[in-house]
Order: sequence, then structure tokens, then C-alpha cells
Amino acid sequence: MKKKYEMRCVTEIMDPRALADILEYADVLQIGARNMQNFSLLNEVGGCGKPILLKRGFASTLEEFMLAAEYLAVRGSRSITLCERGIRASQPHVRNMIDIAAIPLLKVETDLPIIVDLSHSLGRTDIVCEVARGVMAAGADGIMVEVIKEPSKAASDAKQQLDFGEYSQLLNALKIRD
Amino acid sequence: MKKKYEMRCVTEIMDPRALADILEYADVLQIGARNMQNFSLLNEVGGCGKPILLKRGFASTLEEFMLAAEYLAVRGSRSITLCERGIRASQPHVRNMIDIAAIPLLKVETDLPIIVDLSHSLGRTDIVCEVARGVMAAGADGIMVEVIKEPSKAASDAKQQLDFGEYSQLLNALKIRD
Amino acid sequence: MKKKYEMRCVTEIMDPRALADILEYADVLQIGARNMQNFSLLNEVGGCGKPILLKRGFASTLEEFMLAAEYLAVRGSRSITLCERGIRASQPHVRNMIDIAAIPLLKVETDLPIIVDLSHSLGRTDIVCEVARGVMAAGADGIMVEVIKEPSKAASDAKQQLDFGEYSQLLNALKIRD
Amino acid sequence: MKKKYEMRCVTEIMDPRALADILEYADVLQIGARNMQNFSLLNEVGGCGKPILLKRGFASTLEEFMLAAEYLAVRGSRSITLCERGIRASQPHVRNMIDIAAIPLLKVETDLPIIVDLSHSLGRTDIVCEVARGVMAAGADGIMVEVIKEPSKAASDAKQQLDFGEYSQLLNALKIRD
Repeated sequence: MKKKYEMRCVTEIMDPRALADILEYADVLQIGARNMQNFSLLNEVGGCGKPILLKRGFASTLEEFMLAAEYLAVRGSRSITLCERGIRASQPHVRNMIDIAAIPLLKVETDLPIIVDLSHSLGRTDIVCEVARGVMAAGADGIMVEVIKEPSKAASDAKQQLDFGEYSQLLNALKIRD
Repeated sequence: MKKKYEMRCVTEIMDPRALADILEYADVLQIGARNMQNFSLLNEVGGCGKPILLKRGFASTLEEFMLAAEYLAVRGSRSITLCERGIRASQPHVRNMIDIAAIPLLKVETDLPIIVDLSHSLGRTDIVCEVARGVMAAGADGIMVEVIKEPSKAASDAKQQLDFGEYSQLLNALKIRD
Repeated sequence: MKKKYEMRCVTEIMDPRALADILEYADVLQIGARNMQNFSLLNEVGGCGKPILLKRGFASTLEEFMLAAEYLAVRGSRSITLCERGIRASQPHVRNMIDIAAIPLLKVETDLPIIVDLSHSLGRTDIVCEVARGVMAAGADGIMVEVIKEPSKAASDAKQQLDFGEYSQLLNALKIRD
Repeated sequence: MKKKYEMRCVTEIMDPRALADILEYADVLQIGARNMQNFSLLNEVGGCGKPILLKRGFASTLEEFMLAAEYLAVRGSRSITLCERGIRASQPHVRNMIDIAAIPLLKVETDLPIIVDLSHSLGRTDIVCEVARGVMAAGADGIMVEVIKEPSKAASDAKQQLDFGEYSQLLNALKIRD
């Protein structure tokens, strides 16, 4: 059976005043790492009725992360996905260090799905397949990667973006049928 | 077929002058995280002819880790195993944060086996199974855990030690036949 | 000569929509550490015409800190004060680690005054005098401390708040005449 | 009155077996950051009768630092100087982040002198004067800097070494008469 794709528009919201406009076309609203504790934004987005993707702040504790999610839930949000995207650490081989222990802990402490943003955390593409297998095996519900036709022409973050061939390898590594 | 166990004595060496005594009974010599850059110790142990387990320092970069391994190799060591045991980070839910990206990177950069010490890194037992699955799926060659009959009576580090039941669950989680 | 006090109301703003209300009574608008990269807020506050106190994010680099200040300046702000308030680190003796090197570096790289928030960084009162002297000697233009009549009755952060006696000692330590 | 200089030879010891040789010419024995928890070395050096300079490990807590000093004291050492040399952090503007709060805390918790190694911590020379003033004002008993005739020809760490002119400025900044 052929897998049917469903395209969904995920849009990062940074200003509570932009909500009405964004709701018109976005399927999912993303709260970025820099706004995880922007409580006026959380307040507004939590009541919007659309699925929310909440990224962990880059030095936030799990407790702070879960409190931010609770902030959304209290406002009425019924579909929150947590996104681990790495902790800023003194390790030059990655941009941010993925907190693999956070995956099972968040599964125990909340009933929310958790995905891992491999592009912003690793900041490189050569180990995406191995780390993707690792976080999925540790219980993640999904991963997030940036894919672009020609990474070298990307407007930003070129080093972390997969081209179509690398994306295909990743699907293979995860045994996802194309 | 029943799996046969082979007991091996791994002994941490901290003083180069203790080498002769330790060689008599140890099968594997461990260099602990606090001694990863104790070059006089590396110098001595590197030439001893026995397998060596080299633990990563708790704030060391991968480059420093690989240089320490090279130090051993230059002295003649033919069997070096690298052990990732977590980076000290500002995250209270674990004792040290496992660097999952280090696993595939060390596999590419060296031809040495790499294992992950789940007990000293996590400092807790409730998520050992999930993280063990994760690091194995990311390419680790093995894991290291502390198991004891009655963790509550352990002389130290009681919170991180598995009892026999938890150990059995871990073997199941990794689908290792007992 | 008796020093005359001037009371000024510093108010933290977290929601761009609250600006009009806050402008009525606040002398200085504070952007908190959690909002240092809340660009829609910076955008709004930068054009308000009042002095701004910009706190450094708790894992932000100096470059990110200066870019946030530039964001305010581009919007027209003519009075921006930078506030170092410590970096989240794996050191249990303080809540956040003050980055003393940031003081002279920010003085060279910008022409903005820089103050240090000793209460939120240290999270304790017993070493406030010594650290206050240190950051002033390193070139800080001022310090910020929390003072309250009865710290034990504080609604939050009781451990970091000075009582009047400790505040008096601090003024002495800095040789500020009361 | 002219200040008389006293040259003292500080030698880093890394191998307990080198002690006898080093004792012949060294006035002070230094335990480096990488060896702060090398207990067989501490054990040997603690009983040697010469002054010891103990550097803090680059991710060590104050408690670990003080325990290492106690290790030396228990072995009989009567002259131990503590040296803060910065914590490895995710901040690219310095090599290591000086922990200014450690200075008054160590003064309270121990009766040992504490100095700050400005060269290895900052990894740059342009802010040495300001930070030196800061750490002295916070209660440090001294500082340590690397000075060399021609830093550009240094065998290592050229970026952190002062030339004679910069050293002279530093003495001025600290109001030390030459």
C-alpha cells in the first residue's frame, strides 16, 4: 500500500498580535526555543484551538519545559507536542547537546508526544541517521529535520540541512517506506 | 542454546605504581573520568598489554578524549574501549548528560569500540532501559551498568544501581537472552 | 552633603500589548532574561522613548546580548542599560555564574552602561558585598540588588534578598554614603 | 624604597614518581587542573613539605576543590594555595569562565589563600587589567599571569600571554610599584 503524504503548515509565532493572521493558514503553531517562557505568547496561543509544537528553551530544565506546556494546557490547548532541541553546552562538535534522558522522563511525567529536532540540535548532517535511530529507540514519537533541494543555497543554517539524497537515507535508516 | 557467561575483572587504576599488582588479577584496566588526562598514568598503562577501558572526562571534548586514546595507542595498546559517561551540565534531572552524538562521531573518527556507562551518567535507574535502547540504536557497542543485590545497602551511589529484577528488565529491553 | 535619593519605578514588560499602560507609570522598562530574544517585544519597547534595562538571557552569548540591544537601538531607543545576571552553569554554590569578563568586553564593544544583578545571579546574600566590589572594580557602572524589610516573608526568592542591615553593609562595602 | 624581587620556581608535577627530582629545584609544586582529582598524586605531594599550588579542575565544584585541598592537608601539607582558573562554559568570548563568587566563598570556607589564573581562564589579554582589578577587589590574594618577551613566538597559548608592556600596564592597574 502506498503511503499518502499529508502536507501540514507549521508556522512559528513570535508575537501574540499575529495570531489571527497565522490562524488563517497554519495547521500547527510553533513556539520557538527563544519564546518558551514568553508567557504572554503562551497565554494567547494556548487558547487558539490549533495544535501547538512547543520547543524547549536552550538552557531550560525539564521542569520549566513542562510548566510551559501546562501554561498552554490550562488555556485550553488539547494538542501539544513537545520538541527537544538540545541544550547549549561547551562541546564544539555539536551546536546543542541532545538530552536523550529527557525523552523517557517526559513520557513518564506527561502524556504528551515528544519529538526531537535533529537539525537545530546537531547543526550537522553526517550523524543524523544514527542519532535519529537513537532517539526513536529511546521512545521519541518523531523527529524533525530540515530538508532542502540545495543546502548550499540555503538562506541560513546550510550546514544542518539535508538534501533529498540524505533525506532518503534517513527514511531508510528509520525503515520508513517512501 | 544457553549463553555462557564469562566473568571479567575490570579494575580502575589511579596510580602508575600500582600497575604490577593490578596486572596480576585484572582482565581489563579502567582509566576513570578523573584520570583521562593523567598522562603519566596513560603512559604506563598504554604499554601494559591488557585491554583498557578509557572513560571520558566529565567536561572533556571529543578531541581531548581521542587524544587520550591515542596516547595509549602510541604506547602500544592494541585493545582500547572508549566509554561515554556523560557531561556535567546544568540539568538537575540527570547526574551527567549523555552525549548521544558522540557515539556515531567516535565511530567515524576512530576504529575503537564505544560503550556508554548508564549508571554514572544518569544517576537514576527508572529510565535505564529506554536510554540503553537509544544508545545501542545510535551505534554504541555496549553499555555498562551497576547491578547489586540490594541497592539500598550499597556503600555508595545507591540511587544509580540496578537490582536483579531491574537488570533482568534491561536484558529484556535489549532483547539479550539470559 | 546629604545624598538625595531619587525613586524610580522599573517595571518588567512581557507583553507588547501592555506597553501603553506601563508607560503611564514606569520610569524604566525592563526586558527580562526570558524575553531577551522576544523580538516582537523588543520591537515595541525600542520605540517607546523611555529608558530600557535589558537583561542578558541565562545562556546567551555576548553577541546575542549585543544584537538584542541593537534591536532596541535601531527602533530609536536612546537609553539602554545592559544587565549581566549570570549564566546557568553546573555549579551548585550559586544560582547563576556571573560572567565578570563580560563587563570590560561590553564596555569596549558598546558604549552602553552595564550593571550586574547580584540577587538573581548569586541567589544568596552572604557574598554580595565582596562580589559587588569585584564587579565594580572590573568596570561595572552599577549593581542591582533586591532589598526587603523581612526577607523571610518575601513572596518569592527569599534567599537572595537583603534586609536593611545587609543593605547598609553593602553601601559601606562600596563606600556609598547613605 | 625599592621592592626586591624574589624569583620562585613553580613546577607542575604530574607523576608521583617525579617528586624526588622536582623537589631538588622547585620552590612550589603545582597540581594542574587536569590532576586536581588525581588522588595518588595528591597523596604523594601532600607530604612533601613544600608549598603547593592547587588548581581547580575545569568543571569541578567548590566542594570537590576543597576536598582535594583537604587531601593534601591530611597528608601534612602546611602551605596550600588555591587557584581558580575558570569553568568550561558555552561562552565563546573566553576560554573558561572565571567564577568570581568562588573567591569569597573559599575565603569563608577555608583559611587558604586563593589566587586567580587570568591567562588560562580568559585566554586573551585585552581585558586582563579590568578582570584583575575585579578579582582582587572581590578578595583574591593574588593573580597569576603568563608574561613572555615575544608572545607571537610562544610555543603555545600565544593569545593569552602578556608582553612586557602589557605586564607593566597590569602592574599599574593594580597599583603595584615596579
